[in-house]
Amino acid sequence: MRRLVALAVLALALPASAEDAPVTPNAIVAAAPAADWQAIDPADLLVMDLAPDRDGNPRRVVFQLIPAPFSQGWVGNIRKLAAAHWWDGTSINRVQDNYVVQWGDVTEKKALPNGLTQPGEEQYSEQYKGQIDHYGPCPAPRGDEICKTTERPADEAIAFFDNDSYTGNTGFYSGWPIGMKTTRAAPLVVSVSAPGSKRPPTDIPVQLDSTEMWPTHCYGMVGVGRNVSPDTGTGAELYTVIGQAPRQLDRNIALVGRIIEGMENLSSLPRGHGDLGFYADDEADKRVPILSVRLGNEIRDLPRFEYLSTESKSFAAYVHSRANRKDDFYIQPAGGVDICNVPVPIRRAPQ
Amino acid sequence: MRRLVALAVLALALPASAEDAPVTPNAIVAAAPAADWQAIDPADLLVMDLAPDRDGNPRRVVFQLIPAPFSQGWVGNIRKLAAAHWWDGTSINRVQDNYVVQWGDVTEKKALPNGLTQPGEEQYSEQYKGQIDHYGPCPAPRGDEICKTTERPADEAIAFFDNDSYTGNTGFYSGWPIGMKTTRAAPLVVSVSAPGSKRPPTDIPVQLDSTEMWPTHCYGMVGVGRNVSPDTGTGAELYTVIGQAPRQLDRNIALVGRIIEGMENLSSLPRGHGDLGFYADDEADKRVPILSVRLGNEIRDLPRFEYLSTESKSFAAYVHSRANRKDDFYIQPAGGVDICNVPVPIRRAPQ
Repeated sequence: MRRLVALAVLALALPASAEDAPVTPNAIVAAAPAADWQAIDPADLLVMDLAPDRDGNPRRVVFQLIPAPFSQGWVGNIRKLAAAHWWDGTSINRVQDNYVVQWGDVTEKKALPNGLTQPGEEQYSEQYKGQIDHYGPCPAPRGDEICKTTERPADEAIAFFDNDSYTGNTGFYSGWPIGMKTTRAAPLVVSVSAPGSKRPPTDIPVQLDSTEMWPTHCYGMVGVGRNVSPDTGTGAELYTVIGQAPRQLDRNIALVGRIIEGMENLSSLPRGHGDLGFYADDEADKRVPILSVRLGNEIRDLPRFEYLSTESKSFAAYVHSRANRKDDFYIQPAGGVDICNVPVPIRRAPQ
Repeated sequence: MRRLVALAVLALALPASAEDAPVTPNAIVAAAPAADWQAIDPADLLVMDLAPDRDGNPRRVVFQLIPAPFSQGWVGNIRKLAAAHWWDGTSINRVQDNYVVQWGDVTEKKALPNGLTQPGEEQYSEQYKGQIDHYGPCPAPRGDEICKTTERPADEAIAFFDNDSYTGNTGFYSGWPIGMKTTRAAPLVVSVSAPGSKRPPTDIPVQLDSTEMWPTHCYGMVGVGRNVSPDTGTGAELYTVIGQAPRQLDRNIALVGRIIEGMENLSSLPRGHGDLGFYADDEADKRVPILSVRLGNEIRDLPRFEYLSTESKSFAAYVHSRANRKDDFYIQPAGGVDICNVPVPIRRAPQ
């Protein structure tokens, strides 16, 4: 995969004065101009209200549904389940340390609403014909600057890392962390002739790389529980990652979103002691009731949220900083970073 | 770093019959022979008893101190702090979601016992002259088998992965996850002559690679809190990782151990809402009191613990399985795995 990145070197424009430049990831995000922030449509949010905690504090979890082209079969189902108020009265049933929190119908007998689809396994990833824009560590010194390849036309997807432990490349697509695998196709030759022309056709070589892309199982990502393959789940049973990224699940389970607020209301729940971290029968009282799940545009006074565009220069500088910490606390910059250690910045929109 | 692994191909002996072979990581660990398990000396354990939870349930956390050659300055301090009962009456002061839980003296004024040392930054990693034994994915197909290089003499350290996001190689050293960076030294020439011989000396070339090794910040690893560099901390302020591995801290902070039992008593604590996830003044009641911290050999009836030897064939098969899930649930083996997604199996010793 190494051939995909850093073919040519064009240092990204960083702030002119090194002394004035924000050096920590947080400072870079704080200094990002308003234009670098992308609004999240409330219709793409789900709001899950859990029963209050023992002290009566409300517990709300907000998650963002993944946009097209990923996992749209399941996302469509989830919109229908929310519209049908299907999750109301269900519960959090599994909390496995360093793995996942899972919720849904503990009886596994609750009837599903009509109209759900059953997506196939092929929808775990997407295939593209075309070329993508690449950022990555410059050839030398390794990881010390972010470079951009200039040979290829830009697309929405940006690859940042060519040294992932699980796959050749990782990067970001419209604000989401993705894995990618690119296959260089054999060149096609297309014969072209002008209508009515008497000249012989001209042969034009066409190079169409094929890139497979899929969302990655990072902390806080939301996925679709399922039984043994070829079952792919409906979206009624959901989980979120609360530990080290279980990337072995990538392309084996549908990812449908990510928690953007209230993660602690899931990650700090007491762990279950049944098989796979499900609450055992004698700890059934730990199952937190789900009061309601609604789409964000049905919730009055929901804050507006926005994410830092992963195509922005601010984001590129943020990635660079996370890979090369040089602020006072650090003595040895890593020179690299894992895709799941680059959480996409998300915030409440300034009033 | 690619040159370090898979120079020659010798497939590890896996069970003869593919049909009988345990295929999941858990099944491989369960089938490991007793000889593959290594006892942990109780004198290398710390036992931290927290105040009981709201329902009166006891909360014990057991952690294992890292062995030589890593971080021994801080480990020595920690033994002295435990012997002095220094942590008794201190508390859990910080719970930052997807990052760390930290404990120690919230006042930062409690006097330290005499005799502590102040290790220097050079102790964040260790330098070796010599060569190490390497396992890794076979050249083709990628990641489908674990291979061993046969050209180099074995040592205690074994490198498994050459595609880490943060450093060239990762692997295991006596049961602990490590990062490594090997520098091939220029060959030395040593002149040798037999005592009393009248023959001219013989020139012998000697190749001594230099490998830097350090423990990695995986889930459950325990590190030493410190202020801004060049402060390196004493070991009185400790933290453990409760989210995605913050590997940028490797070689910037001393790692001194790992939680081996009771992790959920830390990871499920309520998150703090002050700066950096410290409990703010208005949530001081969330600070869980630490009743006592003792060395394991001072605790009556402490269970015996053991870990799966990282030099064993069972462990190699376990790594292979984690990188290539092919059991019924999986349709797409990853073909790779992150060092922090290969927790070293640790269990209570069978009675």
